[in-house]
Amino acid sequence: MSKLSHYDSAGTARMVDISEKVNTARTAQAHAFVRMSAEVLAALPANPKGDPLEVARIAAIQAAKRTWELIPLCHQIPIAKVDIDFRIETAGIRVFSYVACIAGTGAEMEALTAAAVAALTIYDMTKALDKGIEISELHLLKKSGGKSGDYERTKND
Amino acid sequence: MSKLSHYDSAGTARMVDISEKVNTARTAQAHAFVRMSAEVLAALPANPKGDPLEVARIAAIQAAKRTWELIPLCHQIPIAKVDIDFRIETAGIRVFSYVACIAGTGAEMEALTAAAVAALTIYDMTKALDKGIEISELHLLKKSGGKSGDYERTKND
Amino acid sequence: MSKLSHYDSAGTARMVDISEKVNTARTAQAHAFVRMSAEVLAALPANPKGDPLEVARIAAIQAAKRTWELIPLCHQIPIAKVDIDFRIETAGIRVFSYVACIAGTGAEMEALTAAAVAALTIYDMTKALDKGIEISELHLLKKSGGKSGDYERTKND
Amino acid sequence: MSKLSHYDSAGTARMVDISEKVNTARTAQAHAFVRMSAEVLAALPANPKGDPLEVARIAAIQAAKRTWELIPLCHQIPIAKVDIDFRIETAGIRVFSYVACIAGTGAEMEALTAAAVAALTIYDMTKALDKGIEISELHLLKKSGGKSGDYERTKND
Amino acid sequence: MSKLSHYDSAGTARMVDISEKVNTARTAQAHAFVRMSAEVLAALPANPKGDPLEVARIAAIQAAKRTWELIPLCHQIPIAKVDIDFRIETAGIRVFSYVACIAGTGAEMEALTAAAVAALTIYDMTKALDKGIEISELHLLKKSGGKSGDYERTKND
Amino acid sequence: MSKLSHYDSAGTARMVDISEKVNTARTAQAHAFVRMSAEVLAALPANPKGDPLEVARIAAIQAAKRTWELIPLCHQIPIAKVDIDFRIETAGIRVFSYVACIAGTGAEMEALTAAAVAALTIYDMTKALDKGIEISELHLLKKSGGKSGDYERTKND
Repeated sequence: MSKLSHYDSAGTARMVDISEKVNTARTAQAHAFVRMSAEVLAALPANPKGDPLEVARIAAIQAAKRTWELIPLCHQIPIAKVDIDFRIETAGIRVFSYVACIAGTGAEMEALTAAAVAALTIYDMTKALDKGIEISELHLLKKSGGKSGDYERTKND
Repeated sequence: MSKLSHYDSAGTARMVDISEKVNTARTAQAHAFVRMSAEVLAALPANPKGDPLEVARIAAIQAAKRTWELIPLCHQIPIAKVDIDFRIETAGIRVFSYVACIAGTGAEMEALTAAAVAALTIYDMTKALDKGIEISELHLLKKSGGKSGDYERTKND
Repeated sequence: MSKLSHYDSAGTARMVDISEKVNTARTAQAHAFVRMSAEVLAALPANPKGDPLEVARIAAIQAAKRTWELIPLCHQIPIAKVDIDFRIETAGIRVFSYVACIAGTGAEMEALTAAAVAALTIYDMTKALDKGIEISELHLLKKSGGKSGDYERTKND
Repeated sequence: MSKLSHYDSAGTARMVDISEKVNTARTAQAHAFVRMSAEVLAALPANPKGDPLEVARIAAIQAAKRTWELIPLCHQIPIAKVDIDFRIETAGIRVFSYVACIAGTGAEMEALTAAAVAALTIYDMTKALDKGIEISELHLLKKSGGKSGDYERTKND
Repeated sequence: MSKLSHYDSAGTARMVDISEKVNTARTAQAHAFVRMSAEVLAALPANPKGDPLEVARIAAIQAAKRTWELIPLCHQIPIAKVDIDFRIETAGIRVFSYVACIAGTGAEMEALTAAAVAALTIYDMTKALDKGIEISELHLLKKSGGKSGDYERTKND
Repeated sequence: MSKLSHYDSAGTARMVDISEKVNTARTAQAHAFVRMSAEVLAALPANPKGDPLEVARIAAIQAAKRTWELIPLCHQIPIAKVDIDFRIETAGIRVFSYVACIAGTGAEMEALTAAAVAALTIYDMTKALDKGIEISELHLLKKSGGKSGDYERTKND
C-alpha cells in the first residue's frame, strides 16, 4: 500500500508535486445514484422537456471545471471533455460522469465532483416533493492513464 | 404533494421568487458516509494530527458558502454558521454538517453540499491507498424554519 | 443630470456607499438580440429539446448571481429571482431577463449581465455554424424601486 | 455547414472533446459599441484621467480569464495575452478586444466575453447619467489558428 | 482576554455563529506600506495616468468582495462601500482601505484583504523593475460598530 | 532597468504576452511575518492540534491557485505544487511559501499571494485576542527559471 501522497513526513497538508510528471491522456468515470420514490419519479415527466436532468447536466459540467476550487489539494487540470449521462430506473436516477484531460495528474476528483453536483442538483430540483431523497453509490467506476495505471471498479469494491 | 417549485408552467428552469418571503431563522443538517477498508482507516492515524478530516472540514465550510455557485437555481443566502463533525466507525467515516442562516429560503442545499464536499475531500486525501472508497447515505437529517415547516428524517426514509 | 456616482472628487473609482440606503423591493428587466441567419435558426430545432436556449438560460441565471464578480464597482445584492425568456423571430433570438431583489441598490447590472451571458452562450452553442452571429440591442427595458424612481425604455431611446 | 459541435446525437449538452487536438497558437478579436448621448460622452472627460475606460479595461481582462466559468461548455484555456482598446466616437465608445493563447481550442468566446464585460462596465459607470445607453455590434472581428482556419468578418456579415 | 472565537471546545475549526447578532453599521480601516527604491518610484510617473495605482485600486475593491472565498472562516457580508487611497512617500506607497457594511459581524478582514491585494498588485505592476519590493505594516487602523466596540490602533501597537 | 512590462506605450494596462515564451520549470518562494504579543502566542497551543496554522495552510494553498482572479494582470498558470511552512518565534509566526510550475511566466505572485493569505488567515483566527496583530516582511525570497533568471533576496534588499 502506497503512502498517503498528500502528506509529507511532518503530517501537514501539501499539494503533491506534479512538476516532474509527464502530461499524458487520462480519463475517469464516476457514478452516483439518486434514490427517490415512485411518486417523485412519476412527477418528473410532468416537467416539460425533462429539464431537471438538463439543469443537473450543466451544473455537473461546470462543477467539474471548478473541482480545484472545491477540493483543497487538487491541481487545476485542463479538462478536455466532460460527459454526463443519466439512466432513469424504478428506484431513482443513475448518474454517470466522464472526464478526459491531458495532464500530469488524473481526473478522478473531477469525475466524482461532477457526479456529486449532478446528484445534488437533482435533489435541489425535486426537494419540494420529497426531502427524503438520498444520494448513494458515489464512487469511481474507472480510470485510465497515469503512473498508477488503469483502474476498474469490481463488484466486490 | 406540492408542485416542483423551480418550474413555471412552461417547464423552463427559473429561480423561485423569494422576494415576498420573510427573513427568518433557518437551520439544516445533512449527513454522508465515506466507506473505507479497515486498512485505509488504520492508516489515518498515521497522519499526525488527524489532518485529512481537518482539510475536509475547511473544504466543507468553504463549499457551503459557494453552494449558489454550484447549484444553478440556489439563492445566495447569508450563512450565519457552518459546523462539520466527523465520527470514525469500523466501516468508515460519518460526516455531519449543520448550517444556520436568517434568510428567505432554507439552508438544505448548503448543508448537503458541505457534507458532499467533506466526503469528496476525504476521498481525495485517501485515494492513493484505495480508489474503491465509496460515498453513500448523503441525505438531509433535519431542517427547521420556513413556511414548509420542520423536517426530520425518519428511519423509513 | 446627476453626477457620475462611482467617482469622488479626486476622479478615482470607488463603490457608491449604500450603507444609508433602505432595503426595498427592486426589479429590473433587460433585453438582447442575437441576430443569426435563417440557415442557423432552421438548424436549432434539429437539436432535440431546444437545448441551446436551455443552456443559455442556466448560464444567464448563474451569471446574474455573479455580476458583482464581473463588474468591479457593483455591490453583492441578494437576488430573489431571475427569469430568462426567449422569443424566436425570423432574424434571430430575442432574450429577455428579469431580476428581483430586496436591496439598497438596483438590479440593472444583474439583468443586463444575465441578458449578455444568455446571448453569448447562444453564440457559443451555434458558432460552429456561423461565426458572423451578432449580439445587439443589449439594453435596459425597465426598472422599478429605489430613490431614482421607475424607468421604462421608450422607442426614442 | 458543420454539425453543432456541442451536441451529441441524443441532443444533450456536452463539452466538445479537445483531447486529440494539438495545442497551437490562436488569436481572436471581438468588438462592441456602447451608444451614448453627446451629453453623457461630454461628461466623461470630467472624470479625471478617463477612468471609466480604465475600470472597463481591467474588468474585461479579468472577465476573459473567467470565460469558462460563465459560458457552460467552454474549456479553460491558458490565456497568453488580453488587450482591450477603446475608440471614442461622436455616437459612443467602440470597444476592441484581442486574446491570444496556445491551446486546443480557440479564444473566440474569451474575446467576446471581454468585449461584453468592458461594455457592461462602461454602462455601469455612466448609468447614473443615462439609463438608455445601449450596447450593440457585439461580434467577432477575426480569428486565427485552429483546424477551422482563419476568419475575418466582412461588411456583409 | 476573550476566547479564540473560531474554535469550539474540541479544537476544530468552525464559523462563529452570527445568527443571533443584530445587523448594525460597521466600518473598518486598514493599512499597508509598499517599500520601493527611489528609482522604481521615480519610474511610476512615466506610466501615463498613474495607472499602477488604478489597477491596484480596482483589484482591492474586488478582493474586498471576495474575502469570504479567501479566508476560510469569514462570513459573506453585504459590503456597502469600499474606498482605497494611496499616498506616495519617499520610501514607497502607503495604502489605505475603508470598508463599510450593515452586518452581524465586522469588516476587519475585508479591509485587511483589500489593503493586502492593493499592495500585491502594486508589486505585480512593478516587479519587472525590482523584485526586492517589500510589503509591511499591514494592519488594522480602526474599526467601529459591533459588540466588541470601537478600536483604534495606537502608536504602541 | 527593464521597462514596466505591464504597460504599453500608451500607458494602459495590458497583460504581458507570453504566447512566445517556452514553458519551463519555475519556482518561487515568499515570506511573511505575523507579529503578535507573547500573550496571543501563548494562547495558540491552547487550540488543540495547532489548528490556526492548519486553517492558514489550506487557505494559502487555495489562494495560490486563485492568484489570477485576484491580481488583474496575472496569467493562469498550471501550479504543480504549493508548500506552506510556519516557524513559531518569540515575536510571532513566520510564514514560508513555495510554488512550482511548468509555465511561460513565473510563480512569484502565486507565492506572495499564498504567504499573504496565510498571514491574513492567522490574523482572522486570532483577532478576537488582539486586533493589533501586524503583518510585515511580505516579500519574495527566491525565484528560479524563466528568461529573467534566478533571484535570491539579499540582506540588503
